[in-house]
Amino acid sequence: MNKHAIFHITTAPYAYAKDKDTLSLRVRTAKNDMREVKVHYKCRYDWQNPFKEKTMKLFAQTDLFDFYEADVQIEKNRYRYYFEFIDREGNQLYLDERGLQEELIEGPEIPGFQYAYIGEADVYEECKWMQEAVVYQIFPDRFCNGDQSNDPENILAWGEPVTTESMFGGDIQGIIDKLDYLQDLGIDLIYLTPIFKSTSNHKYNTADYYDIDPHFGSVELVKELVKKCHERGIKIIFDAVFNHSGDDFFAFKDLLENQEKSKYKDWYFPEGYPVSTEKVNYYTFANDVSVMPKLNTANPDVKEYFLKVGEYWVKEVGIDGWRLDVCDEVDHEFWRAFRKTIKSVNKEAVIVGEIQHEAVSFLSGDQLDSIMNYPFKWALVDFFAKRKIDEKEFNNLVTMNRVNYMRSITRQLWNLFGSHDTARFLYECDGKVDRMKLAMVFQFCFEGVPYIYYGDEVGMTGGHDPFNRACMIWNEDEQNKDLLQLYKKLIAIRKENKELIYGDYKPLYLEDNVIVFERNDGENSMIIAINNNEEDYVVNKLFKKKTIDLISEEPVSLNK
Amino acid sequence: MNKHAIFHITTAPYAYAKDKDTLSLRVRTAKNDMREVKVHYKCRYDWQNPFKEKTMKLFAQTDLFDFYEADVQIEKNRYRYYFEFIDREGNQLYLDERGLQEELIEGPEIPGFQYAYIGEADVYEECKWMQEAVVYQIFPDRFCNGDQSNDPENILAWGEPVTTESMFGGDIQGIIDKLDYLQDLGIDLIYLTPIFKSTSNHKYNTADYYDIDPHFGSVELVKELVKKCHERGIKIIFDAVFNHSGDDFFAFKDLLENQEKSKYKDWYFPEGYPVSTEKVNYYTFANDVSVMPKLNTANPDVKEYFLKVGEYWVKEVGIDGWRLDVCDEVDHEFWRAFRKTIKSVNKEAVIVGEIQHEAVSFLSGDQLDSIMNYPFKWALVDFFAKRKIDEKEFNNLVTMNRVNYMRSITRQLWNLFGSHDTARFLYECDGKVDRMKLAMVFQFCFEGVPYIYYGDEVGMTGGHDPFNRACMIWNEDEQNKDLLQLYKKLIAIRKENKELIYGDYKPLYLEDNVIVFERNDGENSMIIAINNNEEDYVVNKLFKKKTIDLISEEPVSLNK
Ligand SMILES: [Ca+2]
Ligand SMILES: [Ca+2]
Repeated sequence: MNKHAIFHITTAPYAYAKDKDTLSLRVRTAKNDMREVKVHYKCRYDWQNPFKEKTMKLFAQTDLFDFYEADVQIEKNRYRYYFEFIDREGNQLYLDERGLQEELIEGPEIPGFQYAYIGEADVYEECKWMQEAVVYQIFPDRFCNGDQSNDPENILAWGEPVTTESMFGGDIQGIIDKLDYLQDLGIDLIYLTPIFKSTSNHKYNTADYYDIDPHFGSVELVKELVKKCHERGIKIIFDAVFNHSGDDFFAFKDLLENQEKSKYKDWYFPEGYPVSTEKVNYYTFANDVSVMPKLNTANPDVKEYFLKVGEYWVKEVGIDGWRLDVCDEVDHEFWRAFRKTIKSVNKEAVIVGEIQHEAVSFLSGDQLDSIMNYPFKWALVDFFAKRKIDEKEFNNLVTMNRVNYMRSITRQLWNLFGSHDTARFLYECDGKVDRMKLAMVFQFCFEGVPYIYYGDEVGMTGGHDPFNRACMIWNEDEQNKDLLQLYKKLIAIRKENKELIYGDYKPLYLEDNVIVFERNDGENSMIIAINNNEEDYVVNKLFKKKTIDLISEEPVSLNK
Repeated sequence: MNKHAIFHITTAPYAYAKDKDTLSLRVRTAKNDMREVKVHYKCRYDWQNPFKEKTMKLFAQTDLFDFYEADVQIEKNRYRYYFEFIDREGNQLYLDERGLQEELIEGPEIPGFQYAYIGEADVYEECKWMQEAVVYQIFPDRFCNGDQSNDPENILAWGEPVTTESMFGGDIQGIIDKLDYLQDLGIDLIYLTPIFKSTSNHKYNTADYYDIDPHFGSVELVKELVKKCHERGIKIIFDAVFNHSGDDFFAFKDLLENQEKSKYKDWYFPEGYPVSTEKVNYYTFANDVSVMPKLNTANPDVKEYFLKVGEYWVKEVGIDGWRLDVCDEVDHEFWRAFRKTIKSVNKEAVIVGEIQHEAVSFLSGDQLDSIMNYPFKWALVDFFAKRKIDEKEFNNLVTMNRVNYMRSITRQLWNLFGSHDTARFLYECDGKVDRMKLAMVFQFCFEGVPYIYYGDEVGMTGGHDPFNRACMIWNEDEQNKDLLQLYKKLIAIRKENKELIYGDYKPLYLEDNVIVFERNDGENSMIIAINNNEEDYVVNKLFKKKTIDLISEEPVSLNK
């Protein structure tokens, strides 16, 4: 038995309250090492009865490890438990709080792991509507110009080549005008990059968190947008840029004006006086971005101000949550308070962090509901778009990604293809639409929330900023209708087959750049086969079920 | 290289802010597998410069694993990092967010781990005074009867055999009377089991959280006790019994009286009406302890009430913190709020949970400062008292215990020998004082806070409750003076040699029930040798330093 591989801790995702009456337990072993893994459990105050036992289910496998899972329930939720392993050679070991044991100390003294109590206040409440949703990201200046009267000066003609500075006049009215299009596409949740008053085209340098940029519209118009989204069953969330403000935000302006005497000097991190936007002698987003001075969220006044901003738009305007810009550079304390504030206004509102990396410390239940899942994106880029890793490494990456978090969180991760911060997926594919289609099939059939960056669905391409932020193609002759149809089809398939949302992900075949996997939720099962090669491929393994080609909708045989 | 053994996550204790400018990193490998382990790190926004590198230090070793540690610092605290391993055969591997890599992806694309920012609000502030303290636990009814006028009826004579129900008249005045004794002993922190109004001798069924039990004294007298402790440089903390109240607490009395109509019914967990203390049809501490109905701390009113209690005694009476009864059955949300409340009144006040098991989910910086470290106690019982495990297993247990937590937390753990909830250590030793002395040497020379349960220092013994709660022996003829002297000596040695507090723990020799280990803080070093046998033992390894016998104070040679 491989002792070094065996791992368990009493925190998420290895031990967590699935709900107030269920403890979800995980344990890790070496790959293919075990014949059977069991958990033994009982009430920590039960000195009379023997432990109950439950066989754990293998639910994930990486190149090195197997992950087993079991949900257990006892009255009053005060757990004591230990694990039992029987390897493929019949060797037996136990794991308790003291480590691996060859023999179990019997009697009341078993030093089992303890999950002492499921406190109701600690239970992470999953967000089913988001698990079942498809997200659509809009960069407003580039989506649709619905009102030419509010256009900035010197806008470029729609579809002209973009620069870092260019503006195209897209606005809130444009989004309202295109809600029929979005509803027809089938998406459920719109994420808007910032729309608050700001000088730039991206508006990540906020001047006023309570006002809509006049080139985009007004608070009244935004209320209309939210209302019309809701009428169509579409939810909508905004972008919370609380890591930094714009340099024209009232507090930073006051600092520039009054310097050491400003009562807002502790809202920022001045490195010396006089604070100057030319010298950039203050902490900013990234490196010396003068228009984005970093906010000091450890300051109670700053914290209170931005909690109120967060509350206002949910409570007064009815948005369905927030995407958090540069989330991982703002303290956990702030996000804990933010969660409480937002959920107390609307329990169903969601909080989604921009964290481009593993984010366990934000996703254990007390802060976020989800992140923009960039590790997923990069795995798809490397396998489908660039074909520089093989199917085993790809499976490994997406599996590590899904076992990082509690199950409910994994189902809520925004599995994006790209965003305004990365090259578009089709660009990564070097324009090869067939590669993108295969990646789309994987995206819509995997655990987590499929995510469309505006325009991806009609075949838009473009490298890094600003080229990934081109104007939406509305001219139907220029749209890739084929791609658009596949998106609609995949959205429909996902909505009709809940096993694609709630089912286990189980790879059945991983060879020669071919992936066959099952999604099975206990009631229904779907098997998805993806051939990431140019040539046809025969899977030398029997699949008895009826198979169809997702692209052509023709019956197809996977066997010889 | 043993790939299965290699482990790192971006949360404590594997990655945490040591202070606002220092990131502390750990990585685990297989035991004796590596020749060198390095961390490579730089600013996550630095696309120009190469990574800095730092060799990591082996700081702990269990039977299976080695643990490496390094502190790193960069401007603005926005970290990207990866690890490099070179094993003893010269093989090289890298570990980043995507797993183990044979070759590193060079350039800006390295998918390193990210500790995106050290938020000032998230930094755990260590408690140096507690790291340097020795704790003394008092069970007031059994410590000293300083005022016979407040004695309960039918008290037993001091020193009579105890029963579950017996009372002996010990009180606050008695503790005040014995402060000279405690000061002479050398302890720094008194932990009092509950003293609030309550019918029992242990007072864990609280009737009134704002009043002192009349058999113990008054709020005024307690203020005097706190003042007199502080005058002597002794701190004092009380017992917060917030998991449950007494059945005579006003809220539960109201529930009993008004049943469904009680406005306090959601303060508890009634399982049916009428709620009855005879049927015990409500959730209690442990199993059906009718006088201890469990409180619903998820109820905001309950939360507010008990946060105020916590605040009152720190703010108005000046206690130095709280020990939290049944801490692990109260929700994390409550303790997060509790920490904020207490620290806002007194930053130096401490919060110590009664958690008898591994407690990572409570000790990551946002809740507790310490726990009563029972896993330490059980390891010492098994090795020193019962001699049923060998020196390697013992070393393994105490090492696993110390690597569970951030370094500052490990130094704050209350390394107890026993308490009112367990048999006394001397009882576990079957009365063999020599065994206890060896354990004491280990306790005072290990990482963490030494802890004395009243009377242990004069040779008191006794099995489980109630026998572990006998009256303190004040008759000097009955005290074990030899043991008392050793306690005083060990306390003095610990105070004079800060490497026993801040030094690394490094085992040098583990064979034949003999343990030799070093504590080295970079400036000073002490080597401690413990022979857990009846016979003399010659350590077949050279120790060049001067050695003395701690017990006899005679020079002694450890070499042949
Ligand atoms: Ca416009
Ligand atoms: Ca008395």
